[in-house]
Amino acid sequence: MLNHLRGYFPILDWGRTYDRNAFSNDMIAAVIVTIMLIPQSLAYALLAGLPPEAGIYASIAPIILYAIFGTSRALAVGPVAVVSLLTASAVGQVADAGTAGYAIAALTLAFLSGVFLVLLGVLRLGFLANFLSHPVIAGFITASGILIAFSQLKHLLGVSAHGHTLPELLMSIGAHLGETNVITVIIGVSATAFLFWVRKGLKPALRRLGASPKLADVLTKAGPVAAVAVTTISVWLFGLNDKGVKIVGEVPQGLPPLTLPSLSPDLIGQLLMPAILISIIGFVESVSVAQTLAAKKRQRIDPDQELIGLGAANIGAAFTGGYPVTGGFARSVVNYDAGAETPAAGAFTAVGLAIAAVALTPLVYFLPTATLAATIVVAVLSLVDFSILKKTWGYSKADFTAVAATILLTLTMGVEVGVASGVGISILLHLYKTSRPHVAEIGLVPGTQHFRNIHRHNVETDPTVLSLRVDESLYFVNARFLEDLVQARVSEGCAIKNVILMFSAVNEVDFSALESLEAINQRLTELGIGLHLSEVKGPVMDRLKSTHFVHELNGRVFLSQYDAWRAMVPPADTDNAAE
Amino acid sequence: MLNHLRGYFPILDWGRTYDRNAFSNDMIAAVIVTIMLIPQSLAYALLAGLPPEAGIYASIAPIILYAIFGTSRALAVGPVAVVSLLTASAVGQVADAGTAGYAIAALTLAFLSGVFLVLLGVLRLGFLANFLSHPVIAGFITASGILIAFSQLKHLLGVSAHGHTLPELLMSIGAHLGETNVITVIIGVSATAFLFWVRKGLKPALRRLGASPKLADVLTKAGPVAAVAVTTISVWLFGLNDKGVKIVGEVPQGLPPLTLPSLSPDLIGQLLMPAILISIIGFVESVSVAQTLAAKKRQRIDPDQELIGLGAANIGAAFTGGYPVTGGFARSVVNYDAGAETPAAGAFTAVGLAIAAVALTPLVYFLPTATLAATIVVAVLSLVDFSILKKTWGYSKADFTAVAATILLTLTMGVEVGVASGVGISILLHLYKTSRPHVAEIGLVPGTQHFRNIHRHNVETDPTVLSLRVDESLYFVNARFLEDLVQARVSEGCAIKNVILMFSAVNEVDFSALESLEAINQRLTELGIGLHLSEVKGPVMDRLKSTHFVHELNGRVFLSQYDAWRAMVPPADTDNAAE
Repeated sequence: MLNHLRGYFPILDWGRTYDRNAFSNDMIAAVIVTIMLIPQSLAYALLAGLPPEAGIYASIAPIILYAIFGTSRALAVGPVAVVSLLTASAVGQVADAGTAGYAIAALTLAFLSGVFLVLLGVLRLGFLANFLSHPVIAGFITASGILIAFSQLKHLLGVSAHGHTLPELLMSIGAHLGETNVITVIIGVSATAFLFWVRKGLKPALRRLGASPKLADVLTKAGPVAAVAVTTISVWLFGLNDKGVKIVGEVPQGLPPLTLPSLSPDLIGQLLMPAILISIIGFVESVSVAQTLAAKKRQRIDPDQELIGLGAANIGAAFTGGYPVTGGFARSVVNYDAGAETPAAGAFTAVGLAIAAVALTPLVYFLPTATLAATIVVAVLSLVDFSILKKTWGYSKADFTAVAATILLTLTMGVEVGVASGVGISILLHLYKTSRPHVAEIGLVPGTQHFRNIHRHNVETDPTVLSLRVDESLYFVNARFLEDLVQARVSEGCAIKNVILMFSAVNEVDFSALESLEAINQRLTELGIGLHLSEVKGPVMDRLKSTHFVHELNGRVFLSQYDAWRAMVPPADTDNAAE
Repeated sequence: MLNHLRGYFPILDWGRTYDRNAFSNDMIAAVIVTIMLIPQSLAYALLAGLPPEAGIYASIAPIILYAIFGTSRALAVGPVAVVSLLTASAVGQVADAGTAGYAIAALTLAFLSGVFLVLLGVLRLGFLANFLSHPVIAGFITASGILIAFSQLKHLLGVSAHGHTLPELLMSIGAHLGETNVITVIIGVSATAFLFWVRKGLKPALRRLGASPKLADVLTKAGPVAAVAVTTISVWLFGLNDKGVKIVGEVPQGLPPLTLPSLSPDLIGQLLMPAILISIIGFVESVSVAQTLAAKKRQRIDPDQELIGLGAANIGAAFTGGYPVTGGFARSVVNYDAGAETPAAGAFTAVGLAIAAVALTPLVYFLPTATLAATIVVAVLSLVDFSILKKTWGYSKADFTAVAATILLTLTMGVEVGVASGVGISILLHLYKTSRPHVAEIGLVPGTQHFRNIHRHNVETDPTVLSLRVDESLYFVNARFLEDLVQARVSEGCAIKNVILMFSAVNEVDFSALESLEAINQRLTELGIGLHLSEVKGPVMDRLKSTHFVHELNGRVFLSQYDAWRAMVPPADTDNAAE
């Protein structure tokens, strides 16, 4: 019973052995992560089109709920760049940014996403996430990074623009270029340049100056906080907000409010597909981060339980003024590197953010949005990596096509079309490949019992026996292909008396393929040619035995291709005398 | 050059050897088919919601064009039941039956379908038709038969009703039941009963009376003509059309008119998806009929050229007042049985129908639509066959699910949703099956070089070697599955020093799976366990060689599983001494 409960509440597992040492490690990690999360949460809320406090609220309840239900010990849950972009795209279609309807739609999106994730987890359907292939994810993340960077350009320029695709964004910014605010540009560009330098140049510089690796690391992480502090103070000192620099302004002080998602069927109908998409993308991102970190410590995560953990986090976000969340790469790595040992570190981070929400929000009143945009731009540009195009081009044109289409369609048609097309194209290309399977004519490798392709290896053959190794499961998409192929091969070779189909690579024979095999058997019978099968796998044979086919087969089913071959071609005296 | 031309114009092939004997056989077949086609063409036009002459027009130009471009020697092209139903469903969504817009939409549908088919043929994309699995087709045909029979009920009752799904049809007929015309019911029911009896009871009865098999056969075929003649004369003699019996009425006398499909982008947009669906279903039906008949005479058909033949036929229908056509089962079998030797039989049938269109249409003025409905009902009920449910249930639950869903959704949601869902469900179930591949732990069958599942066969194993045979291609949908599985197996068995993955059934390793293999290799390396591959197929190995993986692999790639096994487990003295 307790074991069963522990399956659904991993906290019962690690909670039992929690000690002072783990507590102190978790506490230190929480402080570091909290400092990093404050500007990041504000920035991602901005990206999602929501008021800044939504980003902080979305980091409190979700972290605690994930700590209870999640299985990863280092994953940090909260707003992330790609999910924020997806939220902006989905919610932007049903409400205008800045309205109360927009915030409610975002809550509802989180709620639907949470319910969907929990459902998938309870039904053990986590494998659905595998429909997103690695190259499609890589392409999608790269394209999203570019889209996000361009979506922040308006904040760096101080103009109002909008759009969810690259052409829309470029045209909209172009049309508003006249409104550019020079002071905003100066703040934005210098913050961006500073943050890039912090990321690339600060750490080596500090090490050269004699700082310890640990200190250099902490100072590097504090870069965004420094940028926030300096630009906020500058705006306040020089009254730049009166000169057209947009600032964060008043952020309500207090704990996350209790909010209710909308249950309007119309809104749910419009947000359902985006919610499913956000859930799956968020889950894939989160699981790959969690798996990477778990593997480093020889721990394991349970993907189906992860669905429940992320689902609970999203439902929590929906009721506490947040928006869709997932396990973020950057914050999780920081959490891990800072020494977090258990999900309690997440809970302590939540406490830290709650304190910030209650006490520190007046400090960001003068924070320019250009600075937040700069932190987003610098963060997402590290996601942009076109090397996947080169890697897949060299390995498989099908994978390359899927990546290239995903990148192109995400940039030009938006995130939803992009990722859906990526999945669709991957599946279609896979089906296309299996629709024309590789079928090798095989012969015996001399001195062995092993058979290989006659065109690649020097093997023994016999003119009366045609041995074909079918390199694919037989199912409706390729059933007719095999029918045509056997017919064509048999009509070429007049000496053929027996056909052996070697089924070592046939993992399934579906009903359509069974009918094709029956047709092949019938035609060969009419031509006086024997049809035999070899190396039929257990599960395939079990199924064939339940049909008439095995009785109607004019030849035999052999355990091994070698047995089949020897039954038709007796060994010559000279070779394999020892057999 | 001529050979090349013959590829596109099969008429150049059979036309060279055409002689008097073939001519006379073709001529006889044409007369028989023409007599059968006249009532059938009128009936299918009625089913499609078009004026009766459209059915005759759709049988003239298409037959001739198919004779020029098609490869089957016995296929008879024209209106068929399922395609007529699909036409009614598609056109009914954009225009009201009986209007000029309805006829133009039907022409346009034929045109789009023809262009699509020719495109598929020129691009050699005939394999796309394989996405319709045998069970899905069987289920769809059965459900369509039921839908068609119910759609004719209104003509048998003499009420006006409409609908494209079973619930719609039943509710609509129920609402109009009060309008039932008793004389129509008498004509409809007796025609239906008579035609059923002709189909089932007439032939044996004639044989008992001493008729020759040939005569009995011809008289049976003439059954529908007799029903048409008797009911038409009855209506004329007793003036039943004044008593509420609906009749065919005036049919224009003359050759098919020249008509132009609409090029309105709106209409094309609305009809494009239905046109694609009709093309593929029509093609699949036609090709399976053509293949069945060709196999009987050891002839072959070329599916890609068939696409061009059917495409030309549909374009012909679009320009001559017709609607979408395809190769029909009933008419083709009659044509074949009547002794047709070449596509010229089709051309002669076209001449016969042209004569009918010019001279005979006044004869059908008093033909009651109830009689036409009776011929449709009797014809389509022979399509209804639920045995596919039982067959697939016994063989594969996945196939059963696809059939059951296709039947249910076709009946309740209409033909388009039904067939599209059937295809979608088949593909999803296939992907689901491959997402959790069968992986067998294998051992050596004593005295052979052959390896089988340790749970099914009595085999030799070694505690330090884990041999896994992966029974599926590795691709994005199952890549992570293998990663988790190897991790789980290795963490169970502490004695394991080497893992051999036997790739005899791995037909593809895509980029996602390559990354998973790299991850497996890295984790096993950290644990001090060797990772080896065996029986990697040529095409898979070629691709792996182009990557870093083969160099980073901590173990070796063996030609055969036996080589791999022997490299790790030297033979004991007592067994296999001869090796």
